[in-house]
Amino acid sequence: MESSAVFSITQLPFYPPKYNRNKAYTSWPCKKPSPSKSTRLHCQKMYVPGYGHASPEAQAAKNLHNFFTYIAVKIVSAQLQSYNPEAYKELMEFVGRQSLNDGDQFCASMMRESSRHQSLALRILEVRSAYCKTDFEWDNLKRLANKTVSDSNTRLMRDYVLETSHIDVESEK
Amino acid sequence: MESSAVFSITQLPFYPPKYNRNKAYTSWPCKKPSPSKSTRLHCQKMYVPGYGHASPEAQAAKNLHNFFTYIAVKIVSAQLQSYNPEAYKELMEFVGRQSLNDGDQFCASMMRESSRHQSLALRILEVRSAYCKTDFEWDNLKRLANKTVSDSNTRLMRDYVLETSHIDVESEK
Repeated sequence: MESSAVFSITQLPFYPPKYNRNKAYTSWPCKKPSPSKSTRLHCQKMYVPGYGHASPEAQAAKNLHNFFTYIAVKIVSAQLQSYNPEAYKELMEFVGRQSLNDGDQFCASMMRESSRHQSLALRILEVRSAYCKTDFEWDNLKRLANKTVSDSNTRLMRDYVLETSHIDVESEK
Repeated sequence: MESSAVFSITQLPFYPPKYNRNKAYTSWPCKKPSPSKSTRLHCQKMYVPGYGHASPEAQAAKNLHNFFTYIAVKIVSAQLQSYNPEAYKELMEFVGRQSLNDGDQFCASMMRESSRHQSLALRILEVRSAYCKTDFEWDNLKRLANKTVSDSNTRLMRDYVLETSHIDVESEK
């Protein structure tokens, strides 16, 4: 069985973070511009409403965190498939009944399933940490995201122009 | 009406990319290790199955692209709210009935809604490009993601140890 077909993860949440002033990591330097001149001078960024003391970066990081758990499960399953079919089967069975949308919840449940599952869960924690710190190409992510936005904007405008030009030509006939 | 409450975006897809060898931007240097020594020497990364010629970075970039569209809609709506209530109302009405899960689809539909909507859509395209290129803090994203993974791993293991210690103490009574 192809491991990629087993994962039930088709959607991971990407919703706005709840307002929480206690989260130390959620910094967002750009507040809503106040009428005072000093604020305008210090903040050149566009105001993003609804983020309070959190930030879009924190929200994106949270989502990437779940993504890294998903990637770690794929890495560990591929490793097990080749040399430990029994553990691979157990992992796949667990993935089939436990959602991977919340990576931490997935790992917490796995740690409490059995001692064998606990070992697997600890390995997934280790792998997601190593993947985030070492393997994931952050510069490539930035480059690809910039390219995707530019290409999509061009494509959307070109498609619209082509479509409306076609309609104009048709109406002139 | 609070603009953040209007957005229906609660889930954005984060599913594995479809296999497409024609996408120029989907590079993933680490292939499955072959028995040849040269491959092992050149690739020190963990093998992530199921990505073919695509990459986890491309998948994450695609997801961020939709996220930037969502952020751009929030930015534009906040700008309009203060000086163009009519356009703000139109935008909110459109957001209420068109899903933001697919950012490009959202913009394409908006461009074809009316000439006023078209202007709004072009502004959203412009803002998402500027946000991605200028405002979004990529270094902060990396830092927050690393911190989230480290903190979560520590918390999960600590919770498990505390929980099992508690059970042990209870059983000794």
